[in-house]
Amino acid sequence: MERLGTVAIIGVGLIGGSIGLALRQRRLSVRVIGIGRDLGRLDQACSLGAIDDATTDLRTGVREADIVAVCTPVSRIAADVIAAAAASPPGTLITDAGSTKRQIVVAVEADTSARRKFVPAHPIAGSERKGATHAQADLFEKRVCVLTPTRETPEDRLVQARDFWSALGLRLVELDPADHDLALAYTSHLPHAIAAALAGTIPPTVLDLAAGAYRDGTRVAGSDADLWTGIFLANRQSLLHALRAFRDQLDATEQALEAGNKERLVDLWNKGRSHRLRYDALNHPSPTVSEET
Amino acid sequence: MERLGTVAIIGVGLIGGSIGLALRQRRLSVRVIGIGRDLGRLDQACSLGAIDDATTDLRTGVREADIVAVCTPVSRIAADVIAAAAASPPGTLITDAGSTKRQIVVAVEADTSARRKFVPAHPIAGSERKGATHAQADLFEKRVCVLTPTRETPEDRLVQARDFWSALGLRLVELDPADHDLALAYTSHLPHAIAAALAGTIPPTVLDLAAGAYRDGTRVAGSDADLWTGIFLANRQSLLHALRAFRDQLDATEQALEAGNKERLVDLWNKGRSHRLRYDALNHPSPTVSEET
Repeated sequence: MERLGTVAIIGVGLIGGSIGLALRQRRLSVRVIGIGRDLGRLDQACSLGAIDDATTDLRTGVREADIVAVCTPVSRIAADVIAAAAASPPGTLITDAGSTKRQIVVAVEADTSARRKFVPAHPIAGSERKGATHAQADLFEKRVCVLTPTRETPEDRLVQARDFWSALGLRLVELDPADHDLALAYTSHLPHAIAAALAGTIPPTVLDLAAGAYRDGTRVAGSDADLWTGIFLANRQSLLHALRAFRDQLDATEQALEAGNKERLVDLWNKGRSHRLRYDALNHPSPTVSEET
Repeated sequence: MERLGTVAIIGVGLIGGSIGLALRQRRLSVRVIGIGRDLGRLDQACSLGAIDDATTDLRTGVREADIVAVCTPVSRIAADVIAAAAASPPGTLITDAGSTKRQIVVAVEADTSARRKFVPAHPIAGSERKGATHAQADLFEKRVCVLTPTRETPEDRLVQARDFWSALGLRLVELDPADHDLALAYTSHLPHAIAAALAGTIPPTVLDLAAGAYRDGTRVAGSDADLWTGIFLANRQSLLHALRAFRDQLDATEQALEAGNKERLVDLWNKGRSHRLRYDALNHPSPTVSEET
């Protein structure tokens, strides 16, 4: 118990706050220090039990840390990792929770001191809600965490990072940073871009007639604009690639509809349906799913 | 109690089955007769308690009906309404549950006998699952039912139709058939087309990394192909209109991303977000929503 020592969390929002809650409820760490820019929000995270102590000074916060988890928005992660590397003891592990990996890895590895401590990570969990007030101790349970080590990643830190993230209940996958970014462009960033475009298209005057397809199809459009546009820009090329693939699929649907081609519409529908049923089988291998096929 | 008399349901699937369950649990009707093409499935609907009796012969099934609810796929509704009108007593109300209205209304009103008994309706409720085995007695509770009467609709039947649908727990709205179809193209048919295209775009090889945005954004892609392509074709012009509006929104997002224009991306995101928050406020006027704004 308490095998993880002192953990500093930079950025105590939904993800950072949930890491803190999970560490404390599972008694994995001796002490959890929250580092942020807004003292009011840090106090709130203390009252919620997500952190033991708080500071707005990054250097002070990481000084005695065995592990530093950087949970700031993707545009700030590399700078925070480098700052934490400069101020922390030589043996410290620094990991992050960024939704994109390649840009961050390139920037951190340009810094000799930071690359010796850093293991890039992405715990795939979240919500359309932001802030530590929506944090949950079980946010990571049975979810996937992708680690994206490179040739520069020290083996001992990688072992430590695997221990840290799996202790929170996550199932580990290891990928190349660029492969991670392309996969996530499809599984997460594209669905977010589509949900926002869909919500933006539907006139608010007809929302009293909206039902389940609208509710679920636009849910993540309620997420924070800065957070998501930051992720889009940090993964621009892969997201553009995914958007073009989506456009091809949509063009085909539109053409079949214009032509009144029922057979083609059914084929296109069934392509999407078969993918979705594969997802259902992966996640809920239950008899009701096979009934549906 | 039992004020609705004998109700015949043509098409005992998810919607027809749920109407039957609601009628019987609320003791609104003397008898519920299920009419379908597959005797095995009708027997199942009997065992589930959705109907009292079953027949595969439409003429026999409607012969003593006070109310006929036509719950077949949209491409078959007009023909079923006309057939039911020919075989039912002069005082019978015939209503339907089709997701599109204009085409059906035009076809039914071309038949003198059918237009004297018909009130077009669309109870807005459903699921990606099909069949009476997924029917629920509370499927319609607090949901909206759109009635689309025209100048041809007899006033006494309209009164009766309002009584029938509201007795199932639905909140009534009345709209012109074309207005209904355009509104539903945006709130329902577009989200279904987008969900299917999204599911079709995302390679199944990356589905182990998919999380909530994928799960919700593609849920309805698991629905039945025939049912949904039939709805798309029955509402082709309105859906094409909605698809073009969506394409404009997506083009704008893609262009802003290509240009790396953060400010424009934030504006586009916040347009979708503000619509979605309006929907949340309509549906769950709770303090957590305003916290999010």
